[in-house]
Amino acid sequence: MRTFIIKANKAHTKADFKLKDLPGTSGRIDLLCRVLNSAFLLSHSFRKNVRVWLSLYGPPNPPKAIRFEGQGMKPKTLNPDELSTAKLIIKALKVGENLREPSKEIQVLPGIYVSNLTFEDIIRRTLKGATLYYLHEEGRPIERVNFSQNVAFVLGDHEGLTPEDEAFLSGIAEKVSIGRKSYLASHVVAYVNIFLDSITPPP
Amino acid sequence: MRTFIIKANKAHTKADFKLKDLPGTSGRIDLLCRVLNSAFLLSHSFRKNVRVWLSLYGPPNPPKAIRFEGQGMKPKTLNPDELSTAKLIIKALKVGENLREPSKEIQVLPGIYVSNLTFEDIIRRTLKGATLYYLHEEGRPIERVNFSQNVAFVLGDHEGLTPEDEAFLSGIAEKVSIGRKSYLASHVVAYVNIFLDSITPPP
Repeated sequence: MRTFIIKANKAHTKADFKLKDLPGTSGRIDLLCRVLNSAFLLSHSFRKNVRVWLSLYGPPNPPKAIRFEGQGMKPKTLNPDELSTAKLIIKALKVGENLREPSKEIQVLPGIYVSNLTFEDIIRRTLKGATLYYLHEEGRPIERVNFSQNVAFVLGDHEGLTPEDEAFLSGIAEKVSIGRKSYLASHVVAYVNIFLDSITPPP
Repeated sequence: MRTFIIKANKAHTKADFKLKDLPGTSGRIDLLCRVLNSAFLLSHSFRKNVRVWLSLYGPPNPPKAIRFEGQGMKPKTLNPDELSTAKLIIKALKVGENLREPSKEIQVLPGIYVSNLTFEDIIRRTLKGATLYYLHEEGRPIERVNFSQNVAFVLGDHEGLTPEDEAFLSGIAEKVSIGRKSYLASHVVAYVNIFLDSITPPP
């Protein structure tokens, strides 16, 4: 099982943005769409062993969490293009708009859930079943890490994690690096998936 | 120098498609946008040592070729999101619409050129300055290839290359693989870029 957790500190927590201008109006929901693409999609197929948590902290109602569960999603739910994925996020935000409970998850579509879970809630829940890594250019080279079967990776958005987020992760998530440069989150996820495929014995 | 050549057999050669529905109306120009993103973009920066050729063979006026030259492009020309990149492709197709000469390139924007060059023209021109590889899941594992300084990679779109394309490449491009699975073109390009960074000595 592979989990990717992306903390998006500016991503809007209400569907108040324009689909035509995601980068300019949504706090970079476009970036989250590309991360979902990289996390789940293969050519003409789909990774069922992946979970993605989007942890949204932008205006007006942070936090919102959207969980995408490969096991439960229907194969045609997620398509490669950004706009159709943005529509899934919009649907989740609309379903979660009047949710008040701090930890209840509501199903948006099969395998997709929205909640008010905090970043810390997501991390604590993830730690129960997986080893946690924080993808960071100054981390240990990925080739030198001994991965267990259940792994979870935390990533920041275009602005990275805040010092508070990093302080929270310190001691519970090892920093892992895929290279010396600073890469886009979606490229990092694509690389990690393909790298993990290469070290996973065929079924 | 890294060159990526993508042959898109269905991609429209006229700007007759809908920006709102690229997957359904353009012959998968959305896929080409994601390849450009993976080829050029770093977090808050830009790969100047990259060239991308889009070789479009869809209706109504094939072939069209669009060349993106990292050295010549302005840093803010290419943005991460699909729609703004699709607008660059639309602009190139409009500029190239009445072009009749088989080999003349017209500048669309600094570093971006449109022409009627064929896939074979692009390959022949590329072979003059680079070693050519064909990215294919049945190729030699990428870790075992000794790359020279100037490398060029050919990829297919969602339907892959035709038998005729493959016959043309046979003997002039070595097949190279990044893994056992069949990956999306944009993930392949992201992986190849990060892999090549890891074996390139720092400047």
